[in-house]
Amino acid sequence: MSSWGNAVKISIFGESHGEGIGVVIDGLPAGEEIDLDKVYLQMARRAPGKDKAATPRLEKDIPEILSGMLNGKTTGAPLCAVIRNTNTRSGDYGNITNAPRPGHADYTGFVRYSGFNDIRGGGHFSGRLTAPLVFAGAVCRQILNRRGINIAAHISSVGNIEDERFDPVNIPDELCERLSGAVFGLIDINREEKMRALIEQCRLEGDSIGGTIECAVTGVPAGAGSPMFGGVENVISSIIFGIPAVKGIEFGEGFNASRLRGSENNDEFYYDGDNVRTRTNRHGGILGGISSGMPIIFRTAIKPTPSISVQQNTVDLDAHSDTTLNVKGRHDPCIVVRAVPVVEAATAVAVINILSEVHML
Amino acid sequence: MSSWGNAVKISIFGESHGEGIGVVIDGLPAGEEIDLDKVYLQMARRAPGKDKAATPRLEKDIPEILSGMLNGKTTGAPLCAVIRNTNTRSGDYGNITNAPRPGHADYTGFVRYSGFNDIRGGGHFSGRLTAPLVFAGAVCRQILNRRGINIAAHISSVGNIEDERFDPVNIPDELCERLSGAVFGLIDINREEKMRALIEQCRLEGDSIGGTIECAVTGVPAGAGSPMFGGVENVISSIIFGIPAVKGIEFGEGFNASRLRGSENNDEFYYDGDNVRTRTNRHGGILGGISSGMPIIFRTAIKPTPSISVQQNTVDLDAHSDTTLNVKGRHDPCIVVRAVPVVEAATAVAVINILSEVHML
Amino acid sequence: MSSWGNAVKISIFGESHGEGIGVVIDGLPAGEEIDLDKVYLQMARRAPGKDKAATPRLEKDIPEILSGMLNGKTTGAPLCAVIRNTNTRSGDYGNITNAPRPGHADYTGFVRYSGFNDIRGGGHFSGRLTAPLVFAGAVCRQILNRRGINIAAHISSVGNIEDERFDPVNIPDELCERLSGAVFGLIDINREEKMRALIEQCRLEGDSIGGTIECAVTGVPAGAGSPMFGGVENVISSIIFGIPAVKGIEFGEGFNASRLRGSENNDEFYYDGDNVRTRTNRHGGILGGISSGMPIIFRTAIKPTPSISVQQNTVDLDAHSDTTLNVKGRHDPCIVVRAVPVVEAATAVAVINILSEVHML
Amino acid sequence: MSSWGNAVKISIFGESHGEGIGVVIDGLPAGEEIDLDKVYLQMARRAPGKDKAATPRLEKDIPEILSGMLNGKTTGAPLCAVIRNTNTRSGDYGNITNAPRPGHADYTGFVRYSGFNDIRGGGHFSGRLTAPLVFAGAVCRQILNRRGINIAAHISSVGNIEDERFDPVNIPDELCERLSGAVFGLIDINREEKMRALIEQCRLEGDSIGGTIECAVTGVPAGAGSPMFGGVENVISSIIFGIPAVKGIEFGEGFNASRLRGSENNDEFYYDGDNVRTRTNRHGGILGGISSGMPIIFRTAIKPTPSISVQQNTVDLDAHSDTTLNVKGRHDPCIVVRAVPVVEAATAVAVINILSEVHML
Repeated sequence: MSSWGNAVKISIFGESHGEGIGVVIDGLPAGEEIDLDKVYLQMARRAPGKDKAATPRLEKDIPEILSGMLNGKTTGAPLCAVIRNTNTRSGDYGNITNAPRPGHADYTGFVRYSGFNDIRGGGHFSGRLTAPLVFAGAVCRQILNRRGINIAAHISSVGNIEDERFDPVNIPDELCERLSGAVFGLIDINREEKMRALIEQCRLEGDSIGGTIECAVTGVPAGAGSPMFGGVENVISSIIFGIPAVKGIEFGEGFNASRLRGSENNDEFYYDGDNVRTRTNRHGGILGGISSGMPIIFRTAIKPTPSISVQQNTVDLDAHSDTTLNVKGRHDPCIVVRAVPVVEAATAVAVINILSEVHML
Repeated sequence: MSSWGNAVKISIFGESHGEGIGVVIDGLPAGEEIDLDKVYLQMARRAPGKDKAATPRLEKDIPEILSGMLNGKTTGAPLCAVIRNTNTRSGDYGNITNAPRPGHADYTGFVRYSGFNDIRGGGHFSGRLTAPLVFAGAVCRQILNRRGINIAAHISSVGNIEDERFDPVNIPDELCERLSGAVFGLIDINREEKMRALIEQCRLEGDSIGGTIECAVTGVPAGAGSPMFGGVENVISSIIFGIPAVKGIEFGEGFNASRLRGSENNDEFYYDGDNVRTRTNRHGGILGGISSGMPIIFRTAIKPTPSISVQQNTVDLDAHSDTTLNVKGRHDPCIVVRAVPVVEAATAVAVINILSEVHML
Repeated sequence: MSSWGNAVKISIFGESHGEGIGVVIDGLPAGEEIDLDKVYLQMARRAPGKDKAATPRLEKDIPEILSGMLNGKTTGAPLCAVIRNTNTRSGDYGNITNAPRPGHADYTGFVRYSGFNDIRGGGHFSGRLTAPLVFAGAVCRQILNRRGINIAAHISSVGNIEDERFDPVNIPDELCERLSGAVFGLIDINREEKMRALIEQCRLEGDSIGGTIECAVTGVPAGAGSPMFGGVENVISSIIFGIPAVKGIEFGEGFNASRLRGSENNDEFYYDGDNVRTRTNRHGGILGGISSGMPIIFRTAIKPTPSISVQQNTVDLDAHSDTTLNVKGRHDPCIVVRAVPVVEAATAVAVINILSEVHML
Repeated sequence: MSSWGNAVKISIFGESHGEGIGVVIDGLPAGEEIDLDKVYLQMARRAPGKDKAATPRLEKDIPEILSGMLNGKTTGAPLCAVIRNTNTRSGDYGNITNAPRPGHADYTGFVRYSGFNDIRGGGHFSGRLTAPLVFAGAVCRQILNRRGINIAAHISSVGNIEDERFDPVNIPDELCERLSGAVFGLIDINREEKMRALIEQCRLEGDSIGGTIECAVTGVPAGAGSPMFGGVENVISSIIFGIPAVKGIEFGEGFNASRLRGSENNDEFYYDGDNVRTRTNRHGGILGGISSGMPIIFRTAIKPTPSISVQQNTVDLDAHSDTTLNVKGRHDPCIVVRAVPVVEAATAVAVINILSEVHML
């Protein structure tokens, strides 16, 4: 299903090479001022061609808002934004029809939809469908900002080249602001050159590279989320895996916690004035599924773009035989860069639902 | 929320030291024979005291089935199973009331429920609440088995000691059967001794240790799952994070894929007779959120038990001041062992929903 | 599905002649004092044998609370209540197995569950399953009462004998209190004798009779509910039709409004001090799906008990031939009487969800 | 919430005088051929100005399909249709802002959305929002038709003038076909003149009149629907009350059943060849919430259009004082006529979900 959420529901539609893509956001509080320039900024961060490390395909992702806003404010009715599809070269994807691209949803989509799905450009599975998600997140983010909640993500690694990590107990608003506007978001901007060099090398080789994204949410009060299946981790992961190429997620110390002793992993509580805080934050701001008031921090693993230029073995679904494939078209050698604002957006949609559930919005 | 699922919904209730715990399973197909001995076997795997590496607290987790079964078969009506609470020593948890245990949900639960939650033994946040989840999973698993689907998990690591990984393209039924009945589940049983030694060392030091669990699902046909937020990864992760202490999940190569090139990570398709398969399975059986017909494989990170005997700093919520805490009571030095059947169970509940959505059940 | 609700979810389980029936209520606010005696009073109103117009079958519907309450208050964890089945005479239903009772769910349940459903006493379709619904409603009702919201229903007709209607603009608290404790709830108690006489006549003839129930909710502030499918009417009707034998529902003037002119049906607004009210209340407290602040009023149609003693034609599902049936057992000649507290209970569960959605709880 | 459904979810957006309105339909089976001319026919039936009894306001409701269809067939991805708003005269609604129209959602919407909702033309509460619902229903209807399921509704009454009722045990396909294409749908077309005369009289008096709509669904196999809250009645009513002005719904004999004896109301079963049928159909094709295989039949009450030309008392929300209102603009004196295809459409969306739940689609 391409819809998500309880209190604030998003319903995303569209195929890469169809008429248009977009999103309906149902359940937004009324009277919220939405600065569309800020929304477009978020969409520009995700758009291809903005950054030299990304695909040169040009999208004019200017969304048209059909409903749900009046005089710059939300009306409380469902907000629908549509983005027209233009500048698409279907020809590039010609031989994919019968020869599913390894690592892509071509084959599984074919089976799921009995061959009736629109495969041009990946159809509904295309990374382009993250544009309406970024739109939705950009709207929710502004509502959250107004309540003191910031969301920021950065490229925590490309291949084996790592950025610094967030200081999990102290994430300044300025850093959040800088990252949430960045095109190539890094905590330590000195790592950019090395990362770009690796990405460029992959491009030259017709190959691609994966990476990880670290995301932080500050300002969430303690007490949000519910036990068991309504936990903050459950909710965030259930939307984050909707971003193409995400293959893993970990909160706080995550997989590293599996190697630690309890005495190393536990975060001790203390009073900081009237507020209970923890001196360390290996729990990533979540205990028992419920926010602790510390920053919520998670990392997500992004696989390398499956579209690569090198020849690959695959099958011919018509001929029922093995064949080879050379994927043409222009592709990001590293989608991690553009996935950063998508992770932030999905997180914003998650957090607005989490807060709404406990009447904190 | 302590309920989960669309087609087959589970609703888990209970607190560690209340009258009882249990689960309602709504939406099971009718006429399914359920072998209760096999269900009890699964519950025994999770129960404390069954394995010397686990807590000595004895639970007699014999569930009573109140509804939904007749003559050994499901009736189609909601199946409710209740497990009575016995042998609980509330006294052990005496000083926790005002002094939240680091790493536990004591503090977040206190805030979430304004101090009205039942904190004895962790209340609704207790690991004991995984018993009804195992029950539900054991029921679903039998229904899946009948359709050729097997689920098996093993301790893939305790601290830095690792088990072998599944061969992701070839997981024999015998291995699944062995693992899904094991108390200390390992692919390479020769690693047991070293793992147990580490766990025992932690126990002696009043400390604990984390680990990872790898889970495989075989026999799921291609084409199950939905794009975006209805993907197999979304669905599985949204239930798996309902297991206490889970802090991360990765599918297929997961975080390792973030370090790979596309040419290394892509899995090439080929025809194996009439079936499309991949020669490798770094995608973990899921592409674009939809099953590929290859085994579904994921790993989950379990943090070390937060209940440790060493003195820890915390706060006194009544006195509004810092204090120290010595957690008493008997605790697992490594919950990974007992979490293995819980991961399998949650996966069974997830898979039965995934298949039902696409009318494959 | 036997579960319902978003913010406060109920999951009802059990079969008439199984081990037990009950309900899990997930999402209740924590710290709410629940007076169990008041809960039992509500259950007693529904229980058979309390009133001479009802079936003499004796149920000891004393629920056991397994979880979710501590020291008389909700803990915020799922509240589970179980009612044991006792005093059931399966023999009475002997010949129903293959010969579905006209007007009952015997045949449709047989098809739905491929013959595996527990048919004894109606199984999961039994009116007995309204006992846990009354329990859930009695809990929710106390939480609502504390916020100034009252729910009261009465027998508005039995056959052609009608009670008075609520004055839709003025429903005093005392009337609500009287009705919500009554066993044979009438606004004009002078009608009781005539109604009882009709019911008794039906009993003597081995027949049954239908009726209607009118329900009012006072104290709901304006602004609750959502447009289109989230309207108060949608939400209330979706739970009310879960009560066996309900075949219709109408809000405010309902079907009568279909015969009126706009000038007759519109309710004019006026200021009553600072409050906007309507001088009449043909809209039943709901405009555009959203509460107006006036009492919410609806009527529901209850069909005559299908279990009657007179011989009826039916089919033999085994023999694939027509046959006749004499239903034995003790049955209510008029379930309307006992359905009154059930309608109130379902309404309480609906209203607590409606208010929670708009953060009014 | 303006979204509805589980297996097939619709999400409706738009305001009467905004940029556009539309719907996203998520979960449609792939490969279903959709004849758009038939879809437009349904939309034309609902459109104003098609019938002289309806408002003369002209809408060019030609939907643009942005996604979810390729080569005339569904792709399985969400189908989005957008209808542009044109020919709107906001001026007509000028004085409504502060003076809520009696019988409308102006006041309740104002409170619900703190005055930020778009009130022009009723905004999101406008009857115009039924256009995308008709679109969605027209798509679902074609999928159902292909499986032998027909849906037809007619004007069963306008004021006190009644049409014939469906013969509940025998609804010929030809009648379904005729009604589902009719603009002024009647079983007995000889009643049209009298009904039109009454409507015209109301128009001349600046008044309006209510009515009822009877709807039938044929071809639904026995065994669809679920007990308690998943019943066919629950599901249908929860969407039907999303149609503006609906104030009541009854299935089969409905409210009339409340006046009957069990011996009069029960429908006896018999074998018609190999099929179990009932000789009468007072149960409206539903027993215990589950379809019996007989036609599903329900009636719904439509209140008179609240927009009338005669002067009415209301309040001035700015001045906090009483005032009077003369509603201008062109309004249907009887929306029942145009609501007929809307009821059919909502029913189609309901039925496709009901069948999908039990894997009958």
